[in-house]
Amino acid sequence: MKATIRVNIPQTPYDVRIAPGGLDYLGAWLSAGSSPLVKPNQKVLVVSNPVVFDLYGERAIASLRQAGYEVCDCILPAGEPHKTLASIEKIHDVAYKNRLERSSAMVALGGGVIGDMTGFAAATWLRGIAVVQVPTSLLAMVDASMGGKTGVNHPKGKNLIGAFHQPRLVLIDPQVLETLPVREFRAGVAEVIKYGVIWDLPLFETLEAADRLDDFTCVSDQLLQAMLVHSCQAKADVVSQDVQESGIRAILNYGHTVGHAVESLTGYSQINHGEAVAIGMVAAAKIAEMLSQPLSQPLSQPLSQWDATATQRQQQLLEKAQLPRTLPAGIKIDDILMALKSDKKVQSGKVRFVLPKSIGEAFVTDQVTDEMVSSTLEELISKN
Amino acid sequence: MKATIRVNIPQTPYDVRIAPGGLDYLGAWLSAGSSPLVKPNQKVLVVSNPVVFDLYGERAIASLRQAGYEVCDCILPAGEPHKTLASIEKIHDVAYKNRLERSSAMVALGGGVIGDMTGFAAATWLRGIAVVQVPTSLLAMVDASMGGKTGVNHPKGKNLIGAFHQPRLVLIDPQVLETLPVREFRAGVAEVIKYGVIWDLPLFETLEAADRLDDFTCVSDQLLQAMLVHSCQAKADVVSQDVQESGIRAILNYGHTVGHAVESLTGYSQINHGEAVAIGMVAAAKIAEMLSQPLSQPLSQPLSQWDATATQRQQQLLEKAQLPRTLPAGIKIDDILMALKSDKKVQSGKVRFVLPKSIGEAFVTDQVTDEMVSSTLEELISKN
Repeated sequence: MKATIRVNIPQTPYDVRIAPGGLDYLGAWLSAGSSPLVKPNQKVLVVSNPVVFDLYGERAIASLRQAGYEVCDCILPAGEPHKTLASIEKIHDVAYKNRLERSSAMVALGGGVIGDMTGFAAATWLRGIAVVQVPTSLLAMVDASMGGKTGVNHPKGKNLIGAFHQPRLVLIDPQVLETLPVREFRAGVAEVIKYGVIWDLPLFETLEAADRLDDFTCVSDQLLQAMLVHSCQAKADVVSQDVQESGIRAILNYGHTVGHAVESLTGYSQINHGEAVAIGMVAAAKIAEMLSQPLSQPLSQPLSQWDATATQRQQQLLEKAQLPRTLPAGIKIDDILMALKSDKKVQSGKVRFVLPKSIGEAFVTDQVTDEMVSSTLEELISKN
Repeated sequence: MKATIRVNIPQTPYDVRIAPGGLDYLGAWLSAGSSPLVKPNQKVLVVSNPVVFDLYGERAIASLRQAGYEVCDCILPAGEPHKTLASIEKIHDVAYKNRLERSSAMVALGGGVIGDMTGFAAATWLRGIAVVQVPTSLLAMVDASMGGKTGVNHPKGKNLIGAFHQPRLVLIDPQVLETLPVREFRAGVAEVIKYGVIWDLPLFETLEAADRLDDFTCVSDQLLQAMLVHSCQAKADVVSQDVQESGIRAILNYGHTVGHAVESLTGYSQINHGEAVAIGMVAAAKIAEMLSQPLSQPLSQPLSQWDATATQRQQQLLEKAQLPRTLPAGIKIDDILMALKSDKKVQSGKVRFVLPKSIGEAFVTDQVTDEMVSSTLEELISKN
């Protein structure tokens, strides 16, 4: 089962290839054709973390060498706390030592952290060289590897430093998910559910029809393929309409506003990104319910048709994926409100929320008051 | 005497305004019109160095505040050794503390170092916010502020880290040059002479007709205006044909190949950028003479028509601007050759040189051998 999704953006269109066993074809696909994605005999720097590199580094490098590339590598410690400018400097040091040129490329072999950092290092080395994304986590496959967002964290906030830099190719080999820790698999499912809610009703219904979503081994090849294809197509549809995130692309941040605040307040370690997004989706759904009430002005339409049943359906999917639906213990609602104000999505001091309109459709609004957010978050305090 | 030059690049065209006293109109020009360059009431972060900020910071900020912007500033130490990622982090810290948003802007008030760093900080804050260049050195006016090249130095090489990020506006107020140290004025003249050699014969002849080029106070307003307008127009012509430096834009690097090596080997302090470029232009002119000899193959045309007379004319202009034409003492030719190999312009290990074809025209070639470079550099060893 193979699929190719074209991300049809101006100037730098690229393919997302979903292919079981595709890791062994990385070099062949980069070098194929009369106008190859990366010219043969060029230098390729593979960036990875120790765990992923132990599992898949050798295969990736063998495939690249076989295609005639001169390969070097840079292994960085795993995890969000290492997504810093200091790590970018390490990649740049390896790029310098190996004399990477403008026609060289970097390959990101890993999850979202490796993908974001490698993309940013490539965006800023010699003012931009090619990057190829080979995501090894479900979350990176369906989200981070596509769309060209790259960057690192500022000590005070996530992803505040970065650049738009589109990959030459995204290569998704679903087989690598068999070694992904179960908690990270579920985190990826959170983003898949997100696409169902904001963009793709059939995907949402497919997920509803599944017996289990909480473990790679319990998901059929066919379901996994559907999850990947639908999610990547949704992301491709949205980003190709709005490369620089000035409009519709914002809906991809569904669940991310409260999600980022929760991640930030728990130090990017206790809760992972997908879990934080799951919590954020619960909050956003409940806020959407409030805005689906008719407004006080006569004749005005409610902003959303989202109702308690829709919230419940989303809740059931999150539960099926064993994702959290309540705030982590000890987190203060006032701190969340404060963190929201420093989010990238703030415009003129107003927090902009992505809310579902119905299953398969979302919108952006700045009509959410602090009071709505706090009363919603009160409901999300764990009763345990 | 005012002039506006349009840099007509796709998607992000912008103006270069040359206007004596224009500093006081910075805010007005940014906020004017129905589609202002920076929306009123937004936050503007002015980045500068202590010397320039003392001289012009107050006027720039007053002008911005009068136009309704909320202004903050970040003052960084002057000089190339501070053009590092650590300085970018300082700008980002100020951006964070003042809650800069995507609709905010940064203003670079200073020379090339401030311009490059502010541009890169803006390119990478929230994945890109607006930057306005207000160059205060002649070199930044005619070169660094235009074209969107931004970045910092890697410990091992100049400008290895960076991004393309076009400014919203370049505002050139020639009056600020009256406070520029004379040595820096001359450094800027080196780049003006460069445009004459590679692009603009009338500019070259205008410079030949001038009595002096070595001091701002000895250059008439009319000559200064001609130098600025011709240089900016030349740069605008070239970069609008080749935004990402994949072709003709390379000719702007005339004098920069050997120049960068000299800067790097003297630690970016003993020799300034314009002086290094002057030395590099002398070397490139002498190499061009070699390539103007008929090649050994019958019927083949020489690559250049550059001759000893042309070298001499360039030499006279550099002398009139009191720019160096010999290598700094103690520098080793082998070290220069080694440094050339790590230049950004290297392709597949071959050093590419920009050479003059005739006065007003240049070309790029990889036909320059190590032997040609070393015999040329031998001639550039100071006889004192």
